[in-house]
Amino acid sequence: METSVAVIMGSKSDWETMRHACEVLDELEVGYEKKVVSAHRTPDLMFEYAEVARGRGIKVIIAGAGGAAHLPGMVAAKTTLPVIGVPVQSKALNGLDSLLSIVQMPGGIPVATVAIGKAGATNAGLLAAQILGVYDAAVADRLEQKRARITQEVLESSDELV
Amino acid sequence: METSVAVIMGSKSDWETMRHACEVLDELEVGYEKKVVSAHRTPDLMFEYAEVARGRGIKVIIAGAGGAAHLPGMVAAKTTLPVIGVPVQSKALNGLDSLLSIVQMPGGIPVATVAIGKAGATNAGLLAAQILGVYDAAVADRLEQKRARITQEVLESSDELV
Amino acid sequence: METSVAVIMGSKSDWETMRHACEVLDELEVGYEKKVVSAHRTPDLMFEYAEVARGRGIKVIIAGAGGAAHLPGMVAAKTTLPVIGVPVQSKALNGLDSLLSIVQMPGGIPVATVAIGKAGATNAGLLAAQILGVYDAAVADRLEQKRARITQEVLESSDELV
Amino acid sequence: METSVAVIMGSKSDWETMRHACEVLDELEVGYEKKVVSAHRTPDLMFEYAEVARGRGIKVIIAGAGGAAHLPGMVAAKTTLPVIGVPVQSKALNGLDSLLSIVQMPGGIPVATVAIGKAGATNAGLLAAQILGVYDAAVADRLEQKRARITQEVLESSDELV
Amino acid sequence: METSVAVIMGSKSDWETMRHACEVLDELEVGYEKKVVSAHRTPDLMFEYAEVARGRGIKVIIAGAGGAAHLPGMVAAKTTLPVIGVPVQSKALNGLDSLLSIVQMPGGIPVATVAIGKAGATNAGLLAAQILGVYDAAVADRLEQKRARITQEVLESSDELV
Amino acid sequence: METSVAVIMGSKSDWETMRHACEVLDELEVGYEKKVVSAHRTPDLMFEYAEVARGRGIKVIIAGAGGAAHLPGMVAAKTTLPVIGVPVQSKALNGLDSLLSIVQMPGGIPVATVAIGKAGATNAGLLAAQILGVYDAAVADRLEQKRARITQEVLESSDELV
Amino acid sequence: METSVAVIMGSKSDWETMRHACEVLDELEVGYEKKVVSAHRTPDLMFEYAEVARGRGIKVIIAGAGGAAHLPGMVAAKTTLPVIGVPVQSKALNGLDSLLSIVQMPGGIPVATVAIGKAGATNAGLLAAQILGVYDAAVADRLEQKRARITQEVLESSDELV
Amino acid sequence: METSVAVIMGSKSDWETMRHACEVLDELEVGYEKKVVSAHRTPDLMFEYAEVARGRGIKVIIAGAGGAAHLPGMVAAKTTLPVIGVPVQSKALNGLDSLLSIVQMPGGIPVATVAIGKAGATNAGLLAAQILGVYDAAVADRLEQKRARITQEVLESSDELV
Repeated sequence: METSVAVIMGSKSDWETMRHACEVLDELEVGYEKKVVSAHRTPDLMFEYAEVARGRGIKVIIAGAGGAAHLPGMVAAKTTLPVIGVPVQSKALNGLDSLLSIVQMPGGIPVATVAIGKAGATNAGLLAAQILGVYDAAVADRLEQKRARITQEVLESSDELV
Repeated sequence: METSVAVIMGSKSDWETMRHACEVLDELEVGYEKKVVSAHRTPDLMFEYAEVARGRGIKVIIAGAGGAAHLPGMVAAKTTLPVIGVPVQSKALNGLDSLLSIVQMPGGIPVATVAIGKAGATNAGLLAAQILGVYDAAVADRLEQKRARITQEVLESSDELV
Repeated sequence: METSVAVIMGSKSDWETMRHACEVLDELEVGYEKKVVSAHRTPDLMFEYAEVARGRGIKVIIAGAGGAAHLPGMVAAKTTLPVIGVPVQSKALNGLDSLLSIVQMPGGIPVATVAIGKAGATNAGLLAAQILGVYDAAVADRLEQKRARITQEVLESSDELV
Repeated sequence: METSVAVIMGSKSDWETMRHACEVLDELEVGYEKKVVSAHRTPDLMFEYAEVARGRGIKVIIAGAGGAAHLPGMVAAKTTLPVIGVPVQSKALNGLDSLLSIVQMPGGIPVATVAIGKAGATNAGLLAAQILGVYDAAVADRLEQKRARITQEVLESSDELV
Repeated sequence: METSVAVIMGSKSDWETMRHACEVLDELEVGYEKKVVSAHRTPDLMFEYAEVARGRGIKVIIAGAGGAAHLPGMVAAKTTLPVIGVPVQSKALNGLDSLLSIVQMPGGIPVATVAIGKAGATNAGLLAAQILGVYDAAVADRLEQKRARITQEVLESSDELV
Repeated sequence: METSVAVIMGSKSDWETMRHACEVLDELEVGYEKKVVSAHRTPDLMFEYAEVARGRGIKVIIAGAGGAAHLPGMVAAKTTLPVIGVPVQSKALNGLDSLLSIVQMPGGIPVATVAIGKAGATNAGLLAAQILGVYDAAVADRLEQKRARITQEVLESSDELV
Repeated sequence: METSVAVIMGSKSDWETMRHACEVLDELEVGYEKKVVSAHRTPDLMFEYAEVARGRGIKVIIAGAGGAAHLPGMVAAKTTLPVIGVPVQSKALNGLDSLLSIVQMPGGIPVATVAIGKAGATNAGLLAAQILGVYDAAVADRLEQKRARITQEVLESSDELV
Repeated sequence: METSVAVIMGSKSDWETMRHACEVLDELEVGYEKKVVSAHRTPDLMFEYAEVARGRGIKVIIAGAGGAAHLPGMVAAKTTLPVIGVPVQSKALNGLDSLLSIVQMPGGIPVATVAIGKAGATNAGLLAAQILGVYDAAVADRLEQKRARITQEVLESSDELV
């Protein structure tokens, strides 16, 4: 399975959140690699990683970070691949700082931002697959099937309200 | 030129913001259509529009809305195409309500959210092109050229500080 | 007992909050049905449910949801029955996102929004009864009696301050 | 035309916002009265007004206020009629204070809160009519017609995007 | 000991916070009474209580409440005695709603607002004593002594940093 | 007329706000002095001013400041007179920073905080008078008369809604 | 005059704010250079600039940026010189996004953050001089003199309150 | 080892946060002293401490405080040494009040503000060392070595993602 998606995060502690992106990619049979890349503590690695990503066959980058979360935006500054930013929930401000640091990018350098925390990481995996699914019919099919499963689960859950 | 991108907005008044997405798409020679589709005032049109979008050849949907901004998320609920959400700046809360209503989607249904207002709309156009550029080398090339132009402009602007 | 009120929620996990609405309706002898209806994961069900609600004899809809909470507003877009929105407390932003997503509706499509969480769900049940009580004297009477009980409880609680 | 709705506001300066509620009621042929009633500056009038409202034939009360906006909640404390609260946009905090003061009511005393400012006032008028329309088929019909007009306006507005 | 201060609160559950005001008053030998008085659930009691307070010899009223905290402002509307408002920490919004509901009073009706939660309650007790101390030299003396004790405690605490 | 109240402010530019406190004191015939005293730019003056205030016959201090507004709290640290803090509306954060810097005092040192901006300054003047009025019957009488005037103005303003 | 301080900013439009830093440095006779360096649009220039700064004799870097303001933090990631971050006031969120993006740095890479906008830029210039003044007695002297002038201005401004 | 840095805090309870600053200074072999100095409870000590700091050989002051956090700004008002402010996480508002009270200083008196809580305290220690390292090559070297260690740790942590 080809490695199409890169899942990177600013700190090992972000893995608890970011693994939800990887689980979705596994479920959708999308190949990915995962790596700790810190904007602030390994800036050179970050730049090199972003610069060569397209040449290595990466098609979408998912980047998670918390607090003054600069990783998604700085990776986006070094590539024209789509970059998805996941705001990791921070301790003091509950991820509001992470969210604003990721989403409020200046005109010219977009980051596709998703929700704070676990739901966002899950959706980052889905969004990466949706981007691949624009041209890859097999991925698009698997997305439709997953959507149908999600719908079915909700339909059945009403019976469990007691 | 094929129509690959749909630019929709919840109200005619959002056009002042959303035209910046269209200008970028024009510049990058990406075909698009534009339309007012209101989640709250034309819900049936919205659902039908989202449902048939992929079949009509649309590859990415850009949806802008303000306040309790439900358009991007509801369109995303009806398609597995990538949906980019643009939070339009609202009157009382300056777009914080728009941003949270768009970005805080539950796990399962992603919206690729960009910044509030004009910068976000510009970036929505760029992000749509980046998604197309994953497989379309010509678009990817034009994105690289635009990036280079942006860099050049900044480099030259230092001389203008007085 | 006629089913006058529909209590719907975006996820089974919202039940912990929304059951407080049902308890009030039970206490006031107002008939209701309860159901999981997700704006994002079961959009077609949601539209159909809202569309036929008045015809089925429903008089008030209570809808609870968290995060980018689109359920109350989208149901309101598909009916002219009164829709009461309950912002469920979300994990990262404590329900501020839920509240703004529900209350900041554009002119044309109202949602009667109540407080975040349990107090809001309780009040949603009361508000539904108050709406019925505009014309139904028996419900209005039971509301007055409940109000008197609430007052009495507070009057007695002063003695317990130690 | 019977006076079914009371439109009250904490200060004469709130009229600029609250007149949008009255305009909707005019359009829907719902009878109303309007009055300045201040929670803080005319507390006795407020209590008496709320206490006798149901007996005078009032069916729904719309109350607008800004800042530490206590009017809707205090009126709700003195009646079991449905009370709709309109957060008027305040100077320093843009109505966030008004919104929280109105919506965060404790369990027991609901206020049906709408959006900050003009959109909220418009929706307060509509919501009052929807409440009346639960039993009054003529009002319900006029609401359906207005909804259809709103939809039509949006459908036509797409042609005006230039 | 004369009862100079009234300590009231919107709910029995506020006692956990408000008892810190009473402890300070005990320490400063200021007489007080304490009572649950709810703006929303016992509005008539609240009005009567506020109205007769000055006549009963009360000199300062301390009122604590949470969420849409209307008690301090409404008591202030019914008396010209100084009213001190204590924002009790609320569940979802951590007392930000309580704070704004209490402090953002309109011109004409002041509430002397203190910090959210325990520190605020403690300071409400001190502030009440400071107000009495404007004319009562014995209270002023005890305040100076308490201030000196507080200073001494801090001076000694440096040695405990390990 | 004895000088009972000190009105101080952190900057000359705060006068536009703080003059509303002075106007109320004029109207209530309460003697006051006014002065620019900056916590950050004239710290020694501030400490000396606070330290000798009681000895000079000052009974209440009103202190207005904006941004990181330390003046009210630092004055309160140097006196046991009641200190009223007025949060002046700041440019970027609209006075939310001023409000939190003033109101969130630690247990031990209270500041009686009022609303942001003009309404707060007005209420600071009234609150100072209410504090004096605890023992001074003439001031208490003038407060009651002013309250009655305010009520009358509201009662008459209803007729002006058009 | 040696160039000790670098004043950089993410966009030419930040100059309106950042020139206040330069004016203070001029007044204190501290040599500086100024330049537009964008984290997102000229990332390579930014890294190279930060990397060689110390070798070029720069002692302090002042970096201003708005929105998702990554410049100060990324420069700090590439040097161990002190970096002062100035949050430029942004359009939608008034600089709250700028502030959080700059100040909430992870442990390991500090940014010395000052206030939003003009006051912050002024203070960035002063702080840079204070850092130089730790060892440079002439700069320390000029800072003391400026502080005395500031104090004097406040002392004189009281007479202008009318 | 010379005492170059003063680490002060408003309360003994801040030590849990501030000890992280001390640990960094220990690691970098920078001499420091630590002390509880409260702006509100020991104002005279605070002023004296700040006034004589430079004369005692202190080069940088680190001041931590929470809530209405006045310590860093008031110390900065009494010295022209660089003052680093650490916002301690507060109970109700999670340190947002601490942050705004510290960072939003008026033009003229800078405080170098770092992140809320532990990360901020760590960075305060680093920033103090960076300031000393402007002239002290040995400290600068140790900072470079620590930076390299931090980078190495991140590089190795990727292998631990499972």
